[in-house]
Amino acid sequence: MKADHAQIERLLKTARGQIDGILKMVEEDRYCLDVSNQLMATQSILKKANRMVLRAHMDCCVREAVVSGSPEEKLEELKLLLDKLTD
Amino acid sequence: MKADHAQIERLLKTARGQIDGILKMVEEDRYCLDVSNQLMATQSILKKANRMVLRAHMDCCVREAVVSGSPEEKLEELKLLLDKLTD
Amino acid sequence: MKADHAQIERLLKTARGQIDGILKMVEEDRYCLDVSNQLMATQSILKKANRMVLRAHMDCCVREAVVSGSPEEKLEELKLLLDKLTD
Amino acid sequence: MKADHAQIERLLKTARGQIDGILKMVEEDRYCLDVSNQLMATQSILKKANRMVLRAHMDCCVREAVVSGSPEEKLEELKLLLDKLTD
Repeated sequence: MKADHAQIERLLKTARGQIDGILKMVEEDRYCLDVSNQLMATQSILKKANRMVLRAHMDCCVREAVVSGSPEEKLEELKLLLDKLTD
Repeated sequence: MKADHAQIERLLKTARGQIDGILKMVEEDRYCLDVSNQLMATQSILKKANRMVLRAHMDCCVREAVVSGSPEEKLEELKLLLDKLTD
Repeated sequence: MKADHAQIERLLKTARGQIDGILKMVEEDRYCLDVSNQLMATQSILKKANRMVLRAHMDCCVREAVVSGSPEEKLEELKLLLDKLTD
Repeated sequence: MKADHAQIERLLKTARGQIDGILKMVEEDRYCLDVSNQLMATQSILKKANRMVLRAHMDCCVREAVVSGSPEEKLEELKLLLDKLTD
């Protein structure tokens, strides 16, 4: 994976910490909307990590495949990804 | 634009017809959630048109740019697009 | 519909104008990503209109139903709406 | 929180397990799009948990507040939530 490993790991660990927090909230029977807000905040962190992963993928893997003259597979993958993201 | 023009035009005209329908619903003071449902249905149609436009863009413009040996601009655009779609 | 009619109509007419613009772009065979950007901009306008419609719905219809002592139907509708929005 | 605790906990633990898996993928320097796919799969699980939390919230908290004759706060919260979800 071409994105900065330390940054992605930091985001993942933050997300994991939040999930542990939500598990605790469930155990303590906290208020529905507080749980919901934390669930959405965790989704945002994963979204941010995904954005960084894809940005680096474009900059490295796709670019290299193009330069090396074998871009077919990468372009096909990107097409599937765009399809998924615009669904 | 590389997507099938007839198909995109059909979707756009359907969306426009729905917007005319919603304008009429507003005028007739129809129920909020009926208006909301039509607004969301129209968004779905535009989303579908966008998906088709991007699919064809990948198949044609991006592929051609790669084959022609000048993919830089296309790759940069795709990166911005992915950023927008994962925001 | 409880949202400000003039405001919603203005947004709908803007969206319709944009769709007419996109139809013209298709006819003129404009660049894929320019078409895509306009499609996403139009989606944003409809999204904004929907947000306003739902906000007013909460303030008026739901509140009135609650005050009048017959909130069941409204609550059921809201539940379905939340389901749809979080899907 | 009114949703089934066991079900929500199961989803949260699955999401946490996936995040651990993604951390391992990052460590092993796995392919960008495999990491991205797992990130999106984890988002889907959290989305599902959120949907269940909100559904139960509507069925219990909101309904009870309405029956008890003090729905104001709940309705205001729902309005903010809808705003967020349609943003």
